[in-house]
Amino acid sequence: MVNETITAVKGFLAAGVAAGVKASGKRDLGLLYCPEGATAAAMFTTNRIVAATVEVCREHAAAGQVHAVLVNSGNANACTGPEGLAAARRMCESVGTTLKIDPRHVLPASTGIIGVPLPIDKIDAGIGQAAGHLGDTARAGMDFARAIMTTDTRPKQAVRRITISGCEVTIAGTAKGAGMIGPNMATTICVAATDCAITPELLNRAWRDAIGASLNRLIVDGHQSTNDTAIVLASGAASNRLIKSVCPRYRAFARAMAEVTGDLARQMALDAEGATRMFTVEITGAATAAEARQAARAVAGYDLVKCAVHGADPNWGRIICAVGSSGVRLDPQKLTCKIGGITVFRNGRPTAFDRHAVSAAIAAREHTIRVDLGVGRAADFCYGCDLSRDYVKINADYHT
Amino acid sequence: MVNETITAVKGFLAAGVAAGVKASGKRDLGLLYCPEGATAAAMFTTNRIVAATVEVCREHAAAGQVHAVLVNSGNANACTGPEGLAAARRMCESVGTTLKIDPRHVLPASTGIIGVPLPIDKIDAGIGQAAGHLGDTARAGMDFARAIMTTDTRPKQAVRRITISGCEVTIAGTAKGAGMIGPNMATTICVAATDCAITPELLNRAWRDAIGASLNRLIVDGHQSTNDTAIVLASGAASNRLIKSVCPRYRAFARAMAEVTGDLARQMALDAEGATRMFTVEITGAATAAEARQAARAVAGYDLVKCAVHGADPNWGRIICAVGSSGVRLDPQKLTCKIGGITVFRNGRPTAFDRHAVSAAIAAREHTIRVDLGVGRAADFCYGCDLSRDYVKINADYHT
Repeated sequence: MVNETITAVKGFLAAGVAAGVKASGKRDLGLLYCPEGATAAAMFTTNRIVAATVEVCREHAAAGQVHAVLVNSGNANACTGPEGLAAARRMCESVGTTLKIDPRHVLPASTGIIGVPLPIDKIDAGIGQAAGHLGDTARAGMDFARAIMTTDTRPKQAVRRITISGCEVTIAGTAKGAGMIGPNMATTICVAATDCAITPELLNRAWRDAIGASLNRLIVDGHQSTNDTAIVLASGAASNRLIKSVCPRYRAFARAMAEVTGDLARQMALDAEGATRMFTVEITGAATAAEARQAARAVAGYDLVKCAVHGADPNWGRIICAVGSSGVRLDPQKLTCKIGGITVFRNGRPTAFDRHAVSAAIAAREHTIRVDLGVGRAADFCYGCDLSRDYVKINADYHT
Repeated sequence: MVNETITAVKGFLAAGVAAGVKASGKRDLGLLYCPEGATAAAMFTTNRIVAATVEVCREHAAAGQVHAVLVNSGNANACTGPEGLAAARRMCESVGTTLKIDPRHVLPASTGIIGVPLPIDKIDAGIGQAAGHLGDTARAGMDFARAIMTTDTRPKQAVRRITISGCEVTIAGTAKGAGMIGPNMATTICVAATDCAITPELLNRAWRDAIGASLNRLIVDGHQSTNDTAIVLASGAASNRLIKSVCPRYRAFARAMAEVTGDLARQMALDAEGATRMFTVEITGAATAAEARQAARAVAGYDLVKCAVHGADPNWGRIICAVGSSGVRLDPQKLTCKIGGITVFRNGRPTAFDRHAVSAAIAAREHTIRVDLGVGRAADFCYGCDLSRDYVKINADYHT
């Protein structure tokens, strides 16, 4: 069986255990270990309120040299004051002691409920347990993927293998999604690894581009958590010739990395809280790239559009309304809209279309909404998902 | 019985009939008539796509002299091309012929489904019927209020009576609400009347201030329709000394008008699609007024906060998260949050609080969420409502 998890990447061991943070008894502590050390790139939430773990992770990631990543789910360690910060540091110290590595080479991440003290003793014990289970099997990688989940119904994983200067290079990642997903780092937690030999600068560049075109193009409820963290580690174990410039080898690597994060983003859309299907909004004919992005986000995040997608209703009026109120420039006489490839509105006027065919296109697992603004040549896209009663159920019945 | 409808205002007659635009056979055409003529002020959607009716109404309102307002529900006459524009003009001509007034003195408004041709023949016939039913009774005013409704479950009306220079002045209004309500002109359709003698300039100023502090402070789903129209007519029939400067009489008038629109805004929040309760978000300690407004809107429009309100869950973490990602300046160490008057988060840290009491406060018909950002002295507020399964039901099961 081919390993399609993060341990498919040479130089990495993983584990995921149940430390008791989640009341359910499910796995809630994931450990990723790179014995030989890795270079790292990381992106974080732009929320002004950040989890204690984000503060520590940001500090450690800045140094660039990493041996391990520790992620707990079930508790966000956010809004927890100085005790929370101490707990986040303790996570790293504990991993350091257990694996005999510098605590500053550990990147911590947390996801879960905000404002509840982190049960650091349980995590301490869990770290010992996780260290004992570290392995390079698909099972170990799957355990890690499961340990970072919150309200996700299934783990999200993606792998790409490419050949660079005659060596097989692997890129693999896992992410948790579900709710509180906005267009800025729609990730909560995403951890990827590669065995590619690449300079820290170019790893960082490829990571930013990949996240920008994937997780930053996904909107579930427009929210942005206090904990969003996207980390990539590069072990260099593939022994390819070091990538140190924006050459064809870099481009191949960056493309594969973007495929991994794009794949994860689509899995997140399909497994968003209450979601039954996803859609891609493609905007063309915009005056600027920023306006194209703004319009795409407006449509994908528009509750009434999301409800119409849930009902498989070809309600193009709501799409036009979303675009019109998004604040971007458009030509009302040239505005054109397609749903699932079928034109429903052309040059500012409704067209006769096969309602049954459009409804069937929407009811599929994925479909595309295209809007041409008719004022320029810029384009952009965004991923979205439907809004269901279950989104409300999950988030109204969930009690703190 | 005291007349609490728009016909309580001296100089106005109203009617509301079923013209057959709504398939349900409910009232869908409202006519407000001021035989002696009135000055008018109007505000419109800032959506870049506007209904044909908005175009015509904007043109006629600019002239300032008005004899009648005609509102149809059940069809927005938006995205309907040149035929839609012709139909909007025909509405005015038909009222003009029937009431023997200049068609340019008629303000038209439409609300309902987007992109479907307006059944102008039905409306033509309905205008004759409405003219025959014009009256100054509470019943006539109620018929008008009902005729502008869409998915509203009840009519929304508000009246204030004040004394200005020894004369009784009345201000009355009605609005439809329900869905597609964003913070810019959260109205769809709002029609108010007063018998106050006031210059057009000051009427306009008072109206803008009143809408700004009420309908523009209400967010249901953050959307803005193609049809938002808020109209006020002043007949002068109260015979008060003409208000022609920002004097104490003007202030009394403006205050009463703001009470009318504020009352309507709260009624709209409580009757929003699927809503079971409303809340007010008050932001203090902001760096600027604009940032206070931005933060208030972010909290009131945050789906996860709206779900928590629906579940009566004191989930302050979501409030903090909404404020943190709203893009405004704040001091994480000074951030303080109260729900229903009870402090749940102080100076950046959770406080021990009576969960039962906070939950009970949220479960009430109205409650207030207060957040102090800890960086300045600016303040603002916003009205919101809970997000329920019924919002999704109404908007997913509704088919075009």
